[in-house]
Amino acid sequence: MFMKLEKVEALFRPRRVVLIGSTKIRERIGMASPELFENVIYNIKKYFKGETYIVDIHGKRGFNSLGKIPVDPELIVIMLPPKVSLKQAEKSAEKGAKALVIITGGYNKTQREKLLKLKEKFGVRILGPNTIMGVINTENGLNTTFERDLMPKKGGIAVLSQSGGIGACLLDWACHYGIGISKFVFMGDKIDIDDVDILCYLENDKETKVICFYMEGIKNGRAFIETAKKIVKQKPLLVLKGGVTAEAAKRAISHTASIVGSDQVFNAALKKAGIIRVETIEELMDAAIALEKQPPLKGDRIAVVSNVGGPAIIAADALAKQGLKLAQLSEKTKRSIEQLYPGVDASNPIDMIADARAERYRRVLNLVLADPNVDGAMVINMLKSCFFKPEDAKAIVETALKFPNKPVVDVPAGGDDFELVHEVLAETSIPLYNIPEKAAKALRILREYGKIIEKLNC
Amino acid sequence: MFMKLEKVEALFRPRRVVLIGSTKIRERIGMASPELFENVIYNIKKYFKGETYIVDIHGKRGFNSLGKIPVDPELIVIMLPPKVSLKQAEKSAEKGAKALVIITGGYNKTQREKLLKLKEKFGVRILGPNTIMGVINTENGLNTTFERDLMPKKGGIAVLSQSGGIGACLLDWACHYGIGISKFVFMGDKIDIDDVDILCYLENDKETKVICFYMEGIKNGRAFIETAKKIVKQKPLLVLKGGVTAEAAKRAISHTASIVGSDQVFNAALKKAGIIRVETIEELMDAAIALEKQPPLKGDRIAVVSNVGGPAIIAADALAKQGLKLAQLSEKTKRSIEQLYPGVDASNPIDMIADARAERYRRVLNLVLADPNVDGAMVINMLKSCFFKPEDAKAIVETALKFPNKPVVDVPAGGDDFELVHEVLAETSIPLYNIPEKAAKALRILREYGKIIEKLNC
Repeated sequence: MFMKLEKVEALFRPRRVVLIGSTKIRERIGMASPELFENVIYNIKKYFKGETYIVDIHGKRGFNSLGKIPVDPELIVIMLPPKVSLKQAEKSAEKGAKALVIITGGYNKTQREKLLKLKEKFGVRILGPNTIMGVINTENGLNTTFERDLMPKKGGIAVLSQSGGIGACLLDWACHYGIGISKFVFMGDKIDIDDVDILCYLENDKETKVICFYMEGIKNGRAFIETAKKIVKQKPLLVLKGGVTAEAAKRAISHTASIVGSDQVFNAALKKAGIIRVETIEELMDAAIALEKQPPLKGDRIAVVSNVGGPAIIAADALAKQGLKLAQLSEKTKRSIEQLYPGVDASNPIDMIADARAERYRRVLNLVLADPNVDGAMVINMLKSCFFKPEDAKAIVETALKFPNKPVVDVPAGGDDFELVHEVLAETSIPLYNIPEKAAKALRILREYGKIIEKLNC
Repeated sequence: MFMKLEKVEALFRPRRVVLIGSTKIRERIGMASPELFENVIYNIKKYFKGETYIVDIHGKRGFNSLGKIPVDPELIVIMLPPKVSLKQAEKSAEKGAKALVIITGGYNKTQREKLLKLKEKFGVRILGPNTIMGVINTENGLNTTFERDLMPKKGGIAVLSQSGGIGACLLDWACHYGIGISKFVFMGDKIDIDDVDILCYLENDKETKVICFYMEGIKNGRAFIETAKKIVKQKPLLVLKGGVTAEAAKRAISHTASIVGSDQVFNAALKKAGIIRVETIEELMDAAIALEKQPPLKGDRIAVVSNVGGPAIIAADALAKQGLKLAQLSEKTKRSIEQLYPGVDASNPIDMIADARAERYRRVLNLVLADPNVDGAMVINMLKSCFFKPEDAKAIVETALKFPNKPVVDVPAGGDDFELVHEVLAETSIPLYNIPEKAAKALRILREYGKIIEKLNC
């Protein structure tokens, strides 16, 4: 078991990476193209902090490469058509590689068996084939993707994807919205390294605080559930599943050779394991941000603190739809707010009126979070039609930090308004959502994880 | 009735606009501030194509203003505290104003009654008070909002909002995402001009193709439903309602003095009138874009044409969740696709593989839309992990235009990928969504409107 994990570790934290491809190949199978090879070289050289060796099997003169696999290569990334790949994989295993990432697809049964024999004989661990984009570790800059400069920000969210397309979409999403990523793994065909191996590794990965998983089915259900059960004590595990409906499931079977069971059975298994299930790509990212940045919700009583009336009402509706409650503020809290700001109605949801700026947000949020009847808060701060300025948002994070056990999420509702406040708060502990409905979902997710933790501690 | 509409028309299409405020006022009630006044002046001067008069009641010397209300002023916009407002409203009515927009709030009962007496005596129509942002007409550049340069793109979507905050959020959203707007109305307190008046006007407004309505309650339910019934024959009407849950409803009553009935009763009334209800701010905009750009769906059989597997599976799930079906392609269509592209599995959802570019999209989409078993299509085109380039997206719109009765929506899934394709397709007839789940919802909305039309034609 120790050995197993040590080798999976080489997948994420190799001292030495060898990239094997061709700058001349014309056989366009899977992702074996000279352009893509050069892109991966570019990314590895730009971001990876360890030693890098490039092996161009069609050895262009003057190419910055040793031309051959060094001794003790640790991690080998191969992006060649199956037949040539296999040969290079053999050489790598012989040289003592701990792990292989096979980017390309299209391997037949015999070729897969040969790959697996390398594992048996040399103990090398294999990710893929058909991982397409391979692996990212933001900590050491390891990045085997073939899109230049596609490097997410460092952060606490790990993503595992059974689909290259969904993985690429999530990665693009993370880069675009500045979402902090720890590890990114494109699982591929999983002839060796599987979800359970990766989860076991992430369980003790210090950089990872939340794990996101796109799956189309589970191969080793029992081990997966047992592993998940252990993990969720320390970090939440989110699952988005494709192939839920009958017709999509049919497609998933041919897509990733997944065993797709009934959705009810699947749901029950996830629930038992303490895994949180989400319904869309966006919900997966929104939920991960909430769980990375904020503590679990210890109760369901939410205060809404807003500078506009309509969005506060929408927020109240959305919280109720998510099974949360509008907190009943104590009389003391209400009186304090109304004494400070005559004209403000301190009934939850609190409409502090369009001229509220940093100071009013600070004071009201402080009173609200100090109220024992409140478990968490949704703050709404619009700029349009209001006096609020982006820098006023700092008051929200400063106040929230004084109450580390009560989650706070923020809604700078809209398009430009969202981006302006995002610039101020993106690097802080406050998750941001562009409409109240998404913030309410995020709070529900925090409550779900709160309940999972409570159950485990019983 | 003719007279009534003619006067409401002055609200949107005045030849002459008079803006009355103060550059010196210190009384901060509602939105009566010198800065906001100057911002509205800036917007009106920059965008409005008719005659403009500025009346600064504290007459700064050298100010570009006549200083007094001209004869036959048509539309008067007032942004002063109640007492002064009322005086100016009287003068305006006497001078023959057809319509007043009262930006500021805080009017007491007596002041409201006095305003209404002006209507009785002079026939002037009044929007507000407390409209906060007033009116936008992108056709002639009329824009009474007080955020500088907040001017949406011309287009076919009209928005009515009972809440200033939600209205501002929708306007910010429309500007940010380049959504085409015809008219924008912030309803305010509705002492005179109400939802029904605006709807009656929009029914025959050539620029408006879709109407979006944020409401917290209906004052004149019967007339609203009757008007809606007439309108939906020509253009779809979307409603987002705030104050659905008990606690939010309580808030809505104090917020906009709405009469909030049971949600079931409300829902049944909307359904009877052929109004489409949406659940979130984002869904409202997403639905409006679909209805503006694409024809209603005449059946529920959807083809998914993708260059990635995972997102196509998510799309299939999402369509089923929205009550739509994966079209069963004819054998002829499947054979044609598989002959053209050996290796592509032409079962719906169609995964055309990562190297599909414009030509493959054109050919496959053409075959699919020509298939009588297909009512509409969701196209998915990712850039990351694929060979697709943004300009390839032109093939999608060109092909879709050949089948004007079959809706096509596009999903450049992700963050950067979405923006890159958005740059190419934003001005075309293809609605874009950043994840398949939102595209499926948009198709469901198109089907809902299809059913409404079918029912009307029975």
